Amino acid sequence: VKATVIRKSRFNAAHRLYVKSWSEEENNKVFGLCNNPNFHGHNYHLEVSVTGEIDPVTGYVIDLKIVKDLIQSEVIEPFDHRNLNLDTKEFENLIPTAENIAMVIYNKLRAKMEERFDISVKLFETERNIVVFPATTM
Amino acid sequence: VKATVIRKSRFNAAHRLYVKSWSEEENNKVFGLCNNPNFHGHNYHLEVSVTGEIDPVTGYVIDLKIVKDLIQSEVIEPFDHRNLNLDTKEFENLIPTAENIAMVIYNKLRAKMEERFDISVKLFETERNIVVFPATTM
Amino acid sequence: VKATVIRKSRFNAAHRLYVKSWSEEENNKVFGLCNNPNFHGHNYHLEVSVTGEIDPVTGYVIDLKIVKDLIQSEVIEPFDHRNLNLDTKEFENLIPTAENIAMVIYNKLRAKMEERFDISVKLFETERNIVVFPATTM
Amino acid sequence: VKATVIRKSRFNAAHRLYVKSWSEEENNKVFGLCNNPNFHGHNYHLEVSVTGEIDPVTGYVIDLKIVKDLIQSEVIEPFDHRNLNLDTKEFENLIPTAENIAMVIYNKLRAKMEERFDISVKLFETERNIVVFPATTM
Amino acid sequence: VKATVIRKSRFNAAHRLYVKSWSEEENNKVFGLCNNPNFHGHNYHLEVSVTGEIDPVTGYVIDLKIVKDLIQSEVIEPFDHRNLNLDTKEFENLIPTAENIAMVIYNKLRAKMEERFDISVKLFETERNIVVFPATTM
Amino acid sequence: VKATVIRKSRFNAAHRLYVKSWSEEENNKVFGLCNNPNFHGHNYHLEVSVTGEIDPVTGYVIDLKIVKDLIQSEVIEPFDHRNLNLDTKEFENLIPTAENIAMVIYNKLRAKMEERFDISVKLFETERNIVVFPATTM
Repeated sequence: VKATVIRKSRFNAAHRLYVKSWSEEENNKVFGLCNNPNFHGHNYHLEVSVTGEIDPVTGYVIDLKIVKDLIQSEVIEPFDHRNLNLDTKEFENLIPTAENIAMVIYNKLRAKMEERFDISVKLFETERNIVVFPATTM
Repeated sequence: VKATVIRKSRFNAAHRLYVKSWSEEENNKVFGLCNNPNFHGHNYHLEVSVTGEIDPVTGYVIDLKIVKDLIQSEVIEPFDHRNLNLDTKEFENLIPTAENIAMVIYNKLRAKMEERFDISVKLFETERNIVVFPATTM
Repeated sequence: VKATVIRKSRFNAAHRLYVKSWSEEENNKVFGLCNNPNFHGHNYHLEVSVTGEIDPVTGYVIDLKIVKDLIQSEVIEPFDHRNLNLDTKEFENLIPTAENIAMVIYNKLRAKMEERFDISVKLFETERNIVVFPATTM
Repeated sequence: VKATVIRKSRFNAAHRLYVKSWSEEENNKVFGLCNNPNFHGHNYHLEVSVTGEIDPVTGYVIDLKIVKDLIQSEVIEPFDHRNLNLDTKEFENLIPTAENIAMVIYNKLRAKMEERFDISVKLFETERNIVVFPATTM
Repeated sequence: VKATVIRKSRFNAAHRLYVKSWSEEENNKVFGLCNNPNFHGHNYHLEVSVTGEIDPVTGYVIDLKIVKDLIQSEVIEPFDHRNLNLDTKEFENLIPTAENIAMVIYNKLRAKMEERFDISVKLFETERNIVVFPATTM
Repeated sequence: VKATVIRKSRFNAAHRLYVKSWSEEENNKVFGLCNNPNFHGHNYHLEVSVTGEIDPVTGYVIDLKIVKDLIQSEVIEPFDHRNLNLDTKEFENLIPTAENIAMVIYNKLRAKMEERFDISVKLFETERNIVVFPATTM
């Protein structure tokens, strides 16, 4: 029998949204205040879901400590209290929109999780702006 | 690659639940306190999800400002600080249950969004009573 | 030794803000959308605090069930799923602003609580608009 | 037309995670602090979703009072303020992990709900550890 | 210039409310379900406030890491995933009501904090039942 | 009769904590990750409380729209989507700790509010780190 377990976590980071090849005018039109050249920042809230069989002996889909430690090494350590544009290799050539941050986190965790698990990432940039990757119905 | 973006919003409205063709007794039996003829009200919390391809240049599924503006014109302006039964044409002949409000909001937004996007609506009538339209697994 | 215990509760009601002796124009200027003649509504969240000695035997300031029952009879029953302007005697001649609702709830509870307790009321009209009665520092 | 309605509820319980046939050492390795022989406890938050056709007359998928009453009799009464390991027959021979608690609640509610409804259970053991049963994407 | 800084934390514990010298009947009358002899439990949420001068050089009242570490050693380590009645010396002869737990935490932290700081403790036993120690207005 | 009204708001900003006259080593020792030279950021949540007489005619302490507009011009416009260290004159020579940000916001609002009102500011840097200015008991 399968179930889905979810672990919540958080990190705080600075970022700036702009396309390097665009003019300042184009960037301001599309990204507005998010294009502030001196950066702004967020408290990102992260939910990682892991779907798999419930182990009949332990009653666990997965020990959430494994998920917690993986989030720590793959997400919190490289991103927390960082400037996503300047301090990370992941966003050196990728705009750190919430969509792309969620995709990057998904790909990093997917590479480290056993294949028998399905995973999904939900990222809150603010209380009101949220992304789910991969795509889902609500 | 597809992702789902979610925008949260809120509106405050009065409503009353009753079937015009039913007796007062029948209405009280089915709708209880919600059938108070002088109305009661809620702070409705709304989440609109939009699923589509992540634009490889901007890193956006959709500029959430477009979603925010659409919620403003289609939901907040007609419903906020209104009496859903008396002040709106949408519920002139439709009971404003949370289910029907969610369906009406979905249909209004669906008509205005480009077809390449899938959308979904989650409506919180209270902290404890919630509707998702169209139907979903949790 | 004294401590303060707090009990949270909720009720949903419709209301309208207007001064009967003012013109429609004056009411609209001061109360805006809140003056909608067909009413609008809120999920009110209520916190009642009670300050008193910790009983050395039971370890209670007061059994919170007493507070819960008092909130039920004094606040929930008369106000929940009601129209504050039309269905309650308390707001027959008093504008149901959040300030006045908090004051009315305070006075009703104060009259029923033993004098050895200090009480205070915090009322959330929305997530963002809150009143504390009597006045407090934050 | 189908929609999904969700009802939130809560219960407080004590539990202990351990496999009876394992040594203390094995249990500590897998369950850590959760294996405390004197138990620890949680405020469990529960969301039950029910999917079905919106009744064209009442505008309801289901009267949420029915769901509320079912949660009361099937979940709150047997589990609230209980020790899941010692006070319930459901966990006499089943480890009360969040996964198993969610599965047990699902099975109890499934047995009582009409077949035309699909149901799903989301259980928050803490703010940060959550289970959905049956498995879902996020 | 003085400010107040607040640090939030959490712990999960089992407890039982009863007066050893009372009959079972008396305990049930006063404590109801909270007197379950096999214990129940809570996710306790804790807010510790520290009031003092803002240091003109660092801009800190106190480095919140000091507060966090103190909460860790004085509260989390002795109480988290414990049975308050059976596993702690603090509640060997003191009923672990929310009031008494808040008082105990206050006294433990007060003994370890420099005298120039005023401190205060807010403890959430559930979302709806809260204690502040020492007594406060809301 | 006096009451206190509270208005919540939010802004997102980047910042860095360091004392210009200190060595890098000293700054790292005191501010740790918060001293990242490329900045990090937060979703700041702000609560502004205003205490005054309830107007016997309008039932308002103050129209919260006045408070909302003042927060908009004094806080949101200068700070939202900004780098507090680089983009604001307020923190050109003042470390943008939560304590100092709260004090600066208090002073800006105090200068614009009528003297008959007492005001207070509560600033959430994260869910877990909070400041109240001026100092308060909890």
